[in-house]
Amino acid sequence: MTVLQNDRFLKALRREQVDRTPVWIMRQAGRYLPEYRATRAQAGGIIDLFRNPKLACEVTLQPLDRFELDAAILFSDILTVPDAMGLGLYFETGEGPRFKNPVLDRKAVDALPVLDPDKDLDYVMAAVTEIKSALNGRVPLIGFSGSPWTLVTYMVEGGSSKDFARVKTMAYAEPETMHALLTKVSDAVAAYLLAQVRAGAQALQIFDTWGGSLSHAAYREFSLAYMKEIVAKIKAEAPDIPVILFTKGGGLWIEDIVNSSCDCVGLDWTADIGRVRRLTGGRVALQGNMDPAILRAPPARIREEVSSILDSYGPGPGHVFNLGHGITPDINPEHVEALIRALHDLSPAYHQ
Amino acid sequence: MTVLQNDRFLKALRREQVDRTPVWIMRQAGRYLPEYRATRAQAGGIIDLFRNPKLACEVTLQPLDRFELDAAILFSDILTVPDAMGLGLYFETGEGPRFKNPVLDRKAVDALPVLDPDKDLDYVMAAVTEIKSALNGRVPLIGFSGSPWTLVTYMVEGGSSKDFARVKTMAYAEPETMHALLTKVSDAVAAYLLAQVRAGAQALQIFDTWGGSLSHAAYREFSLAYMKEIVAKIKAEAPDIPVILFTKGGGLWIEDIVNSSCDCVGLDWTADIGRVRRLTGGRVALQGNMDPAILRAPPARIREEVSSILDSYGPGPGHVFNLGHGITPDINPEHVEALIRALHDLSPAYHQ
Repeated sequence: MTVLQNDRFLKALRREQVDRTPVWIMRQAGRYLPEYRATRAQAGGIIDLFRNPKLACEVTLQPLDRFELDAAILFSDILTVPDAMGLGLYFETGEGPRFKNPVLDRKAVDALPVLDPDKDLDYVMAAVTEIKSALNGRVPLIGFSGSPWTLVTYMVEGGSSKDFARVKTMAYAEPETMHALLTKVSDAVAAYLLAQVRAGAQALQIFDTWGGSLSHAAYREFSLAYMKEIVAKIKAEAPDIPVILFTKGGGLWIEDIVNSSCDCVGLDWTADIGRVRRLTGGRVALQGNMDPAILRAPPARIREEVSSILDSYGPGPGHVFNLGHGITPDINPEHVEALIRALHDLSPAYHQ
Repeated sequence: MTVLQNDRFLKALRREQVDRTPVWIMRQAGRYLPEYRATRAQAGGIIDLFRNPKLACEVTLQPLDRFELDAAILFSDILTVPDAMGLGLYFETGEGPRFKNPVLDRKAVDALPVLDPDKDLDYVMAAVTEIKSALNGRVPLIGFSGSPWTLVTYMVEGGSSKDFARVKTMAYAEPETMHALLTKVSDAVAAYLLAQVRAGAQALQIFDTWGGSLSHAAYREFSLAYMKEIVAKIKAEAPDIPVILFTKGGGLWIEDIVNSSCDCVGLDWTADIGRVRRLTGGRVALQGNMDPAILRAPPARIREEVSSILDSYGPGPGHVFNLGHGITPDINPEHVEALIRALHDLSPAYHQ
């Protein structure tokens, strides 16, 4: 076992004392970095990049070489699980991810195979192993998956969607079919995350990117219930691995999310992090929550926003700094540097 | 003066006793109705439709002839104000609204004219007069405008946007320019709404469709502050006209919105209307909040959802039933009939 040299992130997730607020950035290995664009061009397409453990490892480490980040996150795609189920993932330029074989009815649901992630997603596990070894204890490695509801939106729509017409029709008009689908996907996600832990992931994040498209009741029924089951399975098999639940647009449902036994709730920028802290009373750590668009403003404005988020959270442990959603391709890396510098300057005062 | 034959909607906005929960539907005059599609085809394009007072009146009344709705809403576009300011509104097939002359810098902001809505938007005032006369007291007429922030997103982006990159950059990097722009647009919106009242509108709704894209602090600074000013101006000149503020994605900010002196808060479907009622303690009426996607489900499921929303709001006055956002073009009008039938059957029990 290599010794972990920077445990700020894991300590913050456990709400233990740290010297400064740890930070990582959703999509920190991404198109805003010229070195990422170079590796991706070398790989061919995005699929060739995340299916190649050596290149996935390379891009995972790129932001760590540039910035003093406190965690690495596995470079992969959120749609690996449905792809492994046979849906045929491909990317259309400017259109985002698509599936050749969307799941349109009960017959298609029943035909979905049960996954063995170590075999069916061996390239992901190889990437985790490769990254873990390359990190050599520098910072912890976060494994991740899309939430069942989020994966199912792509599986039923056949790709991205503006109004989730098909997937919501299935949920509202054929709830049994939807629950059968979500059950299958949840089982696969739990197995996938536990396989990532066995391969070396030290924390897990579930990205519920589209949970916020649901009504409050439908969110509990079709998204949160399944994330809860997954957290329970992780806690049963890997009790020491902290789990972060991130529902974009889920700010109204924090009290329900906290009851999932997750260790940390990820917040988008619509929530007031200080208010959420008072509401949750220290039962979970909180991650977030700067609007990625602030990174388009000059460094002085970025510093102001970092200061205001630290101030809103207030003194004491349990805060992981992050954006409220992924960093966008147009951001100047120097502005990320400004964010991290501001956090290093300003956050120690909150941890005395 | 014609006598108003159905005042349920206005009474509910004032939180007065009614016999059943009033209902109207955002975009009730819209593409899901074959008669609307026929009139629109006759007009030519969407611009020709809302610029023609006779046809705008015709489509405004169409849903009332089909369904027992408790209010009519002026058929118009939310972008009439920036169009009248010289931005050159046009519609690209499948792309939505676009502006020929987006507002990209301070110079463009300073060049924006001050509007005289009675002159510069005379076709809207003519439509209000025409509709009011055709209604002949059947139900009250709602006037509306986009919120300043929502209009400004289109004015700066030049059309619809996924991530609001340009408009947020202006807000975060050049806040003085943004405030100058919002001030001009707010003044125009207040004048526009007051002109609609003079022409006959009996209630007003401000559609803040994109306020939910902002952080909590930025929402207060760039959206809510200007809606508050508009409400104050309306209350000063037309104190009896109820004002509804609808911020899509604004569920986390209800307490701030209530402090705007509006009469009613419109909710999207992510909020639990009963919880919002307890939070606001009867200081405002609440409008909403069924997920429009439920209308794709069979009538029995629609009835269940109506029942659950009525039950969540609970007994007593102050509820205007609506969807949480506009009805989509693919909805079967019979399903709207099912919604209204369910509301007529179930809601009287909540008003005894």
